Amino acid sequence: MRIDGVAWRSIAPDGADAVRIIDQTRLPYAFATLRLQRCEEVAQAIRSMQVRGAPLIGVAAAYGIALAMQRDPGDAALEAAHTALLATRPTAVNLRWALDRMRALLRPLLPARRAGASWEEAGRIAEEDVAINRAIGAHGAELIAAVHRRSGRPVRVLTHCNAGWIATVDYGTALSAVYQAHDAGVPVHVWVDETRPRNQGLLTAWELAAHGVPHTLIVDNAGGLLMQRGQVDLVLVGADRVSRHGDVCNKIGTYLKALAAFDSGVPFYAAVPSPTIDWSLDDAAGGIEIEERAADEVRWVAGRDADGRPARVAIADGSTAVANPGFDVTPARLVTGIVTERGVARPAELATLFAPARAAA
Amino acid sequence: MRIDGVAWRSIAPDGADAVRIIDQTRLPYAFATLRLQRCEEVAQAIRSMQVRGAPLIGVAAAYGIALAMQRDPGDAALEAAHTALLATRPTAVNLRWALDRMRALLRPLLPARRAGASWEEAGRIAEEDVAINRAIGAHGAELIAAVHRRSGRPVRVLTHCNAGWIATVDYGTALSAVYQAHDAGVPVHVWVDETRPRNQGLLTAWELAAHGVPHTLIVDNAGGLLMQRGQVDLVLVGADRVSRHGDVCNKIGTYLKALAAFDSGVPFYAAVPSPTIDWSLDDAAGGIEIEERAADEVRWVAGRDADGRPARVAIADGSTAVANPGFDVTPARLVTGIVTERGVARPAELATLFAPARAAA
Repeated sequence: MRIDGVAWRSIAPDGADAVRIIDQTRLPYAFATLRLQRCEEVAQAIRSMQVRGAPLIGVAAAYGIALAMQRDPGDAALEAAHTALLATRPTAVNLRWALDRMRALLRPLLPARRAGASWEEAGRIAEEDVAINRAIGAHGAELIAAVHRRSGRPVRVLTHCNAGWIATVDYGTALSAVYQAHDAGVPVHVWVDETRPRNQGLLTAWELAAHGVPHTLIVDNAGGLLMQRGQVDLVLVGADRVSRHGDVCNKIGTYLKALAAFDSGVPFYAAVPSPTIDWSLDDAAGGIEIEERAADEVRWVAGRDADGRPARVAIADGSTAVANPGFDVTPARLVTGIVTERGVARPAELATLFAPARAAA
Repeated sequence: MRIDGVAWRSIAPDGADAVRIIDQTRLPYAFATLRLQRCEEVAQAIRSMQVRGAPLIGVAAAYGIALAMQRDPGDAALEAAHTALLATRPTAVNLRWALDRMRALLRPLLPARRAGASWEEAGRIAEEDVAINRAIGAHGAELIAAVHRRSGRPVRVLTHCNAGWIATVDYGTALSAVYQAHDAGVPVHVWVDETRPRNQGLLTAWELAAHGVPHTLIVDNAGGLLMQRGQVDLVLVGADRVSRHGDVCNKIGTYLKALAAFDSGVPFYAAVPSPTIDWSLDDAAGGIEIEERAADEVRWVAGRDADGRPARVAIADGSTAVANPGFDVTPARLVTGIVTERGVARPAELATLFAPARAAA
């Protein structure tokens, strides 16, 4: 996607021994990139959410393995890098998927070949992510266009968190659909959930503004009322892990929007690249570790001061106990459809959509 | 209630020609009071949420009428004060209730008697509020104690917004129940919803800390997960207007918590003084004006800077469109019970509880 006319990807090789990322902890108040040369730097960037979004952390982890292999291509180093990167964040399955794919490729290779092979494979995963997201967006845009054909009015999409291009290598998942609908001339308006505590909604608003898509920022509390009033045509979110039955684990608060959508008869869709589907997962409610993040993420709010400089305030101090779970699970019964690169499926039919791939796996 | 050992009410006469309020826009980062001498000052304090909470704004408005009558006790001034105060906020019915009560009392009186009579009546409404909230708290505390008797464990209450003593003259509504349970030795822990955009949850945390009640601050997105996990025993909130069928209009986001409570089988109660019940209201979903407040309430977040001084940051600038509806309606079908000063009723039985009073009215 473009920032001030310049084409960007959220992660890209920078020379043959480093990757460059956009520091998402500083967006949208400052735009800065970071050059990462060591696996440990990648792990820290994932942990701190300088890179975030399930698809993107998978790709970043793959590059983390590649950077580790450039320094030490031995078996122990491979295992250590896999372990260190896997420990950064527990919920999104893309991380494990990418790390397992890298390890499976590298283990049979002679150490001398691992640096080159891992660099190429990380690049392949990144390119696949772009292609997958483009395809997801095409299928999702068709959903949006279908609503427009029925109503003749701008399509009002509500989204939670940021499932945009900076949550992936490019295009995004949920927002890929919005961008492609918009680019095809379908009038679309996005209700942007703020998404406390990290306010990823502001990343979404930043992306949408850059692409020229009309949007309105709302607090996380507001979506229920909007749906009661008939002001939302569909809810479209990303996901961090989806069970084979179509339960959707996504950013905390998604479940509340899915409940409201169900209660008001608003369709609820999750845009999900296949690496986000955990085919081993039967029971999403009990089977996913929900990350508990630092209390200070709730206590401190980032923004700009009255002079427009990046600044932050503490809404509570250390004397106030805080709980900060990062994700929740929307049961499949509340999910209208899963938008994948292969098309849109009802939750119960998700496995059918990928049956050949799963048989081959 | 007590602040640093000193007994406070959220509003109180200050001499014979003024009222003193706690400026709630500065809490919990600064404690400051304001002396209001004119009706217009009261109206502005309500509009700006320096005084807030459905019961408190009713009492404040009553004092506003009294201050107006001290300056001009004529019919035109009475009507003008009624109109100006009613226009400050549209959703909470307590405002209209208190204003209509004052006008009904004053209209038949000779102007010369109105200043004294209105001052006394405002004081009576304030004392009634205290008595009502004490009774609500006793009934609500019994609900909490009953959970404890069954489970033998600390009772985990989730609350939204601030229905504490500073939302009333004293005691609070939902928090009155918590305080009385705590004071009776029932172990209770409160999950405190942050309650964006105005973060009234921090007022709740401030109150609970002052009273020594264990509590944990969470973002508005988190409650659904906590209920899915079985970490909430009951949801207990206040209300701004309740229909005669038990639909609960309350701070935006309440409906989302009610949906999650229903989905997980967690009881959902609203603590409601009788002046909050709008007996004329049949259809809450369509019959209540939902206040749309300023976009800057979403854009600017108040807190403390790194040096501990009150400060604020803008999470978005004026180029980002914002919607900021203040309330939503939880349909009676999601409400387990309404806790009133007369006891606890299922929504459908609310009218029965007040049948004698309504017959007399």
